[in-house]
Amino acid sequence: MNYKAVVNILGRILLLEAILLCCPLIVDLIYKEGNHLAYIIPAGSLAVISILIVVFLKPKDKILYAKEGFVITSLAWVLMSLVGAVPFVITKVTGSFIDAFFEIVSGFTTTGATIFNDVEVLPRSILFWRSFSHWIGGMGILVFMLAVIPNQEGGSMHILRAESTGPNVGKLVSKMRITARILYAIYVFFTVLCFIFLVAGKMPLFDSIVNAFATAGTGGFSTKNLSIGQYGNVYYEMVIAVFMLIFGINFNAFYLILIGRLKDVFKMEEVRAYLIMVIVATILIAVDIMSLYQNFGEALRYSFFQVASIISTTGFGTANFDAWPVFAKIILLLLMITGACAGATAGGFKVSRVLILSKSSYTDLRKMLRPRQVIKTKLDGKPLSEEVIRNTKTYLTAYAGIIIVSVLLISIEGNGGVETNISAVISCFNNIGPGFEAVGPLCNYSSYSIFSKIILALDMLAGRLEIFPMLLLFNPNTWKK
Amino acid sequence: MNYKAVVNILGRILLLEAILLCCPLIVDLIYKEGNHLAYIIPAGSLAVISILIVVFLKPKDKILYAKEGFVITSLAWVLMSLVGAVPFVITKVTGSFIDAFFEIVSGFTTTGATIFNDVEVLPRSILFWRSFSHWIGGMGILVFMLAVIPNQEGGSMHILRAESTGPNVGKLVSKMRITARILYAIYVFFTVLCFIFLVAGKMPLFDSIVNAFATAGTGGFSTKNLSIGQYGNVYYEMVIAVFMLIFGINFNAFYLILIGRLKDVFKMEEVRAYLIMVIVATILIAVDIMSLYQNFGEALRYSFFQVASIISTTGFGTANFDAWPVFAKIILLLLMITGACAGATAGGFKVSRVLILSKSSYTDLRKMLRPRQVIKTKLDGKPLSEEVIRNTKTYLTAYAGIIIVSVLLISIEGNGGVETNISAVISCFNNIGPGFEAVGPLCNYSSYSIFSKIILALDMLAGRLEIFPMLLLFNPNTWKK
Repeated sequence: MNYKAVVNILGRILLLEAILLCCPLIVDLIYKEGNHLAYIIPAGSLAVISILIVVFLKPKDKILYAKEGFVITSLAWVLMSLVGAVPFVITKVTGSFIDAFFEIVSGFTTTGATIFNDVEVLPRSILFWRSFSHWIGGMGILVFMLAVIPNQEGGSMHILRAESTGPNVGKLVSKMRITARILYAIYVFFTVLCFIFLVAGKMPLFDSIVNAFATAGTGGFSTKNLSIGQYGNVYYEMVIAVFMLIFGINFNAFYLILIGRLKDVFKMEEVRAYLIMVIVATILIAVDIMSLYQNFGEALRYSFFQVASIISTTGFGTANFDAWPVFAKIILLLLMITGACAGATAGGFKVSRVLILSKSSYTDLRKMLRPRQVIKTKLDGKPLSEEVIRNTKTYLTAYAGIIIVSVLLISIEGNGGVETNISAVISCFNNIGPGFEAVGPLCNYSSYSIFSKIILALDMLAGRLEIFPMLLLFNPNTWKK
Repeated sequence: MNYKAVVNILGRILLLEAILLCCPLIVDLIYKEGNHLAYIIPAGSLAVISILIVVFLKPKDKILYAKEGFVITSLAWVLMSLVGAVPFVITKVTGSFIDAFFEIVSGFTTTGATIFNDVEVLPRSILFWRSFSHWIGGMGILVFMLAVIPNQEGGSMHILRAESTGPNVGKLVSKMRITARILYAIYVFFTVLCFIFLVAGKMPLFDSIVNAFATAGTGGFSTKNLSIGQYGNVYYEMVIAVFMLIFGINFNAFYLILIGRLKDVFKMEEVRAYLIMVIVATILIAVDIMSLYQNFGEALRYSFFQVASIISTTGFGTANFDAWPVFAKIILLLLMITGACAGATAGGFKVSRVLILSKSSYTDLRKMLRPRQVIKTKLDGKPLSEEVIRNTKTYLTAYAGIIIVSVLLISIEGNGGVETNISAVISCFNNIGPGFEAVGPLCNYSSYSIFSKIILALDMLAGRLEIFPMLLLFNPNTWKK
């Protein structure tokens, strides 16, 4: 383990966070809420410590291997969350540091699960910080660092790999830094576009900014207790639903459009499957919930928004889907698990992994009938390597294992039922936010014990970083010299 | 596809079933219940048809390939169930053929899920037929056929493989027929032993026979509405619990004991893991439910019985575990999924598969840190082949896929909640019987629609035959010449 290089990069990330903390500080100053110390104290301390680290702890050897990439990524996310929790405590919106940690982990990982019973009483700077953390976490703080800080070419691929999502992470262009910049440019473009659409519909300026951030990061923290539903505005709902879906699409698709290779976009099976899932789920749910609403159009409105919100793992709500019939709930549960495309800001198991697993299982089935025939599993017209298939199957195993262990652990305290606890873990682990029953769309996570909140926060991190970087932190082999 | 050979073997199996139907007939005659026609009609018709098939439809080519093995196995189970449902209809204990089909599939697959609200009013011959079907299905009708019918050496390995459980099915001795006979000898020995222990404890003779069958097959159909709990007898509970556990152990272990290789039994990691799981789960649940019972001893009594019943996928009950705290319920849910050892009469995902998946995932994790190092996954001290690992991961994918699709399908009718329907599918698919909430230990499956009952019956068959034989029935490639 190249400890010096790891600490040096962590120092740079924390310096970045110090700068990012100035944004909610500005919000505080604009609205004169008097909470400026809540941001100045952590930002100032961070700045001093991190500058000392970056200046005095220079590694001789800059090369980073896979191991260091994983360790940097998971430690960076944990450290950022520990610091990001401080403003919640200083502003006294919560008395518990664990609650604050849960909230900001939920922010950075774009989960959107909250411990606040009433978010409308929170200061604007805190509301901003929650949504801004979605935006930072959505594309990834390390990818951002790669884009803006020079001199990080060696081994940066491992960092991008650890922080990006999906079974098959690749660079868009040969240079790492350019790739990171392109990704962020697309990200900023769509965020601004979403903001413009909301403002054009006369959503208040502050709400437009905050909701645009939460939508872009597919986070789901809202400024209203009843989430987007509280506006009661079809236009807002449709704008946000469409942008949630956009941020659930593999960013490679947008890059291909950018460089004029539109035909290749239509060849992306993942994007096609994702859109088909959205359409089918919307119709099925609309038919199932029709009796609860005035007409099919109304049912379609609530169904479309909820499908977009859940499949993109955002978690915004316009209806109490926990009260929907069981068929609609099961479809939503499945969308929670699959999530959206790889290489997007969304969480979940990812549509591409579902495709790889179902295709390779079908191949296996055919092989059973014809043991000697060579049959290849293809995706996007190209044969999938055995390694990608194996890794995806391993991912499923680890995924199931983490859900099982987490449900067991949060059930020890004895609160909540089977459905509540399983949906809480699935919702946190897939970075969605709401679950069913006691963690349903009208409820929150405040009733869980400290221990369970820590487990759920670790699940969010494991989900955002796709399991292995977090698991490696707990493996003693990782820390061998 | 060698159609003639397939039909010929199916004819032999149906002839066997005709003979087996004489057993409930004898029960009917002994107790003079007057339902003899319910068994004579199907047995007689079967005998005529199957003798015609066996005599006149002789295949030229006796060699069977994997494909034929799978097809014979799944068709045999479906046909047997269709015929086995007839006595329920003729005795008029149910008016619906689908209910009768559900009940007998639940019997043959050793599930034990019932559609009867009151089993105590059923004729004794029917109670016997239900439990006897557990016993036939436990070790497998085709294995039985291999043991008793001569002249089936060619390709019989494929049949054994399709009907036996576990990731790595092998013969005990080089001759197929001898292997089948050894398995059945062990099976009969322990069944008789269980019966003797029950009779020695003064359980009524009929109950002892029927409960011994249901225990041996790890089925769970009971003669009492409150299952084994109704006797209120600790001795019965402990005898049945211990035998349920015995029938959940890989039969290879008993064979090794038989030939004096006791040391090799202790090397079987699956058996060790299985017993550790039983001990740990029993203690954890006993501690969790302690407040509901008079003392820790009482809690231990109910905990041990339920753990043995669930992990062996039997489904007998002595307590309403649906009312237990969430932690205990989650542990039971996990035991439902893992099930017992491969090569036993039990259902579930199998402990050995859990071991293979966790070990190979740990290997993958280590490989991530050291991409160039060669690390092997071992079980029982021997390295596992890539093929076994790949197949086990594929099994997990198919397993998850079937649960998802089934839950969706049985949710269409709109009855039951998320927890009810998920637990119903898990319980049927893993051949257990009871689930949670509306399909809990005090409830039954009568409220599901015809469509959902068919889906659940197919799940039982898919679970008992470990998915692939059933899946292949629905694959058009299977039926090509």
